[in-house]
Amino acid sequence: MFKNALLFFFLTIGFVNCLDNGLALTPPMGWMAWQRFRCITDCEAYPDDCISEKLFMDMADRMAADGYLKAGYEYVMIDDCWASKERDSNNRLQPDPKRFPSGIKALADYIHARGLKFGIYGDFGTKTCAGYPGSLDYLELDAQTWAEWGVDYLKFDGCYVDQKIMPEGYAKMSKYLNDTGRPIVYSCSWPAYQEPLGIESNYTALSESCNLWRNWDDINDSWENVTSILSWFSKNQHRLAPFAGPGHWNDPDMLLIGNYGLSYDQSKAQMAIWSIMAAPLIMSVDLRHMETQFKHILQNKDVIRINQDPMGIQGKLILSKSQIDFWTKPILPKVNGKPSYAIGLLSNRIDGYPYRVNFTLGELNLMENIYVLTDVFEKEIKPKVVDSKDRIFARVRPSGVVLLKAVPNVVAVNQM
Amino acid sequence: MFKNALLFFFLTIGFVNCLDNGLALTPPMGWMAWQRFRCITDCEAYPDDCISEKLFMDMADRMAADGYLKAGYEYVMIDDCWASKERDSNNRLQPDPKRFPSGIKALADYIHARGLKFGIYGDFGTKTCAGYPGSLDYLELDAQTWAEWGVDYLKFDGCYVDQKIMPEGYAKMSKYLNDTGRPIVYSCSWPAYQEPLGIESNYTALSESCNLWRNWDDINDSWENVTSILSWFSKNQHRLAPFAGPGHWNDPDMLLIGNYGLSYDQSKAQMAIWSIMAAPLIMSVDLRHMETQFKHILQNKDVIRINQDPMGIQGKLILSKSQIDFWTKPILPKVNGKPSYAIGLLSNRIDGYPYRVNFTLGELNLMENIYVLTDVFEKEIKPKVVDSKDRIFARVRPSGVVLLKAVPNVVAVNQM
Repeated sequence: MFKNALLFFFLTIGFVNCLDNGLALTPPMGWMAWQRFRCITDCEAYPDDCISEKLFMDMADRMAADGYLKAGYEYVMIDDCWASKERDSNNRLQPDPKRFPSGIKALADYIHARGLKFGIYGDFGTKTCAGYPGSLDYLELDAQTWAEWGVDYLKFDGCYVDQKIMPEGYAKMSKYLNDTGRPIVYSCSWPAYQEPLGIESNYTALSESCNLWRNWDDINDSWENVTSILSWFSKNQHRLAPFAGPGHWNDPDMLLIGNYGLSYDQSKAQMAIWSIMAAPLIMSVDLRHMETQFKHILQNKDVIRINQDPMGIQGKLILSKSQIDFWTKPILPKVNGKPSYAIGLLSNRIDGYPYRVNFTLGELNLMENIYVLTDVFEKEIKPKVVDSKDRIFARVRPSGVVLLKAVPNVVAVNQM
Repeated sequence: MFKNALLFFFLTIGFVNCLDNGLALTPPMGWMAWQRFRCITDCEAYPDDCISEKLFMDMADRMAADGYLKAGYEYVMIDDCWASKERDSNNRLQPDPKRFPSGIKALADYIHARGLKFGIYGDFGTKTCAGYPGSLDYLELDAQTWAEWGVDYLKFDGCYVDQKIMPEGYAKMSKYLNDTGRPIVYSCSWPAYQEPLGIESNYTALSESCNLWRNWDDINDSWENVTSILSWFSKNQHRLAPFAGPGHWNDPDMLLIGNYGLSYDQSKAQMAIWSIMAAPLIMSVDLRHMETQFKHILQNKDVIRINQDPMGIQGKLILSKSQIDFWTKPILPKVNGKPSYAIGLLSNRIDGYPYRVNFTLGELNLMENIYVLTDVFEKEIKPKVVDSKDRIFARVRPSGVVLLKAVPNVVAVNQM
């Protein structure tokens, strides 16, 4: 098998990368149940919201029919609370029979038939976070079960287990997943259990075992929560960013866009900064009831292109002034070896008006070139040719974003 | 003059109420510049946003033409930063000549010609908060100037002065305003300078001198800020609510609706709870660029009716469970002496889904009657007849609100 051949190759050159499964070469994009639908199992009280095969079939239908798949969102992912409380007589995981009467394999088939991929949730410990069976004593069996069901993505959580045994255990699961022969994107949660305790995770090990990993606490439906996540990621970016790249990503958790807690401007801001951070773009929203303006944010091709840039470089917070955070991310195209940049201006201001900030590209370490600067969200704003000393003015709305793209312009340089 | 006659009447019965100016019998409704436009004086950098006669003329036009005046919003109010840095040769306040070339009187005339009323800002101290001339040594002169200009509402701030002399000084200004003979709604800021220091203001004195008073810090464009304000008001409601009523109101500050920081659901929530608190409804938003959905919230007649209820009772937070706050406010109609109630269910949840809370009217102290319960925002939900023991279910969105109205139904009672 190709994967095993690759593994052999790496072993022979003395570099073990258990994971090199050829997956997640750009940040994964998809839909996941947790943020919006949590662990709702009472289908009488919540007929449209409970964790059931109907919910995921509905979402797959919407993903395929409403442009999300076309925009790049390909995974439909179950989170916690899908399983029976007990394993079957063969110790295999089984879905709750009332909520998933057709079985998980049939659901995966339904999703695959729509051109989508299928994700599931497990937990490394004795129980999942919501108290369903965990995989600790069944790693290989569960990997095989999921592969047989047609799983393409595993979110592997870390409740009910000592965090100290996680690095080794998660690596073991990585091997078992690879052993199934099925390409399965592997999302690990172990840093999310270490970092909040003040333990710096081993990101070398993570990037060797996992395609992505949740670094920090779960996201919740509030801007305050988004900013607290951004604050942690930017404080730790020098430690985290080097480990992001094709095949392995830091994951600040799901997109809240289209739910209840973010304004339109805050939604654009999450989309922009998640894209600059090369974060997985995992929606978690009721796609059956989407306001057009939020759908447009989620499907914005130019923003997604920044997120999905093939170089896979995680952008960083590079400057803060006047309560505006400047984030930059090197992206393609390269011109004469110099990359283009996505530039996000994120406002931490709440003082009423769209603040007119000024800056130079030089302040953002874009020193060498003339650049053509375009506004990614506001297409009617004309591109400008600027050099690194030109003072640039931008109006940034309170808790909003301005997203720019700077492309080195050799022609302009040559004309100087 | 009628007002002086009233004053004489009260003096003769030995009860001094300096304020009884017949104004603000329901919470004032209008538009004020500060939250959205702050102290922008650079009209070159911010041509559409700077504090200038053009801005207020634009807003008056929109108030009159776009349904706000018809919905009840009648005051167009300047906040800080309108004045010249120096008084004129007669010690009179004068507007900045570049930004208000026609003068304040002409602006007031423009606003009055559209059927609206005109508000201005002053400060009891030596300077306004933004450093413009204060009124400390010119109370009577400034009251006269404002009356001559056609001012209908004064927001009187409290920067640059010892808070200890405020109660007496604000009362003196109340008298000077009344002495002008012009009906001027008088908004006092002194509690906002005492309460954050831990000093409990004298609300008896406030309600005798002022039509409304800012109790707490300025509002900013974020839901976190709204909830912190609500938290303070609910903690202090037993001290504050008794002083609200026709002619005198607690003021939790402006509505953020239509700006950048609140989601649609959070905007409905602010509108609903401000209405239940009998708070002044003072918009501060660029009315030239309003999304329809936010305009509909601001102009919702049924919510405004709750706010403007003639009994003028300030509603209270009465119960919290499952992170849902239950607010109630007695309103008209009364049936057999028993009031109706507005009931606001405000979610402090951020966990993804519209939580299905259950409660009884009995838990909210609506004990005596059968009530007809209607959903104020969702007109398509059919009214229900419920008694105080019936379990009522409502789905409340994260950081959102459900607003109900319960009207005593004597007929239904008689039929039992």
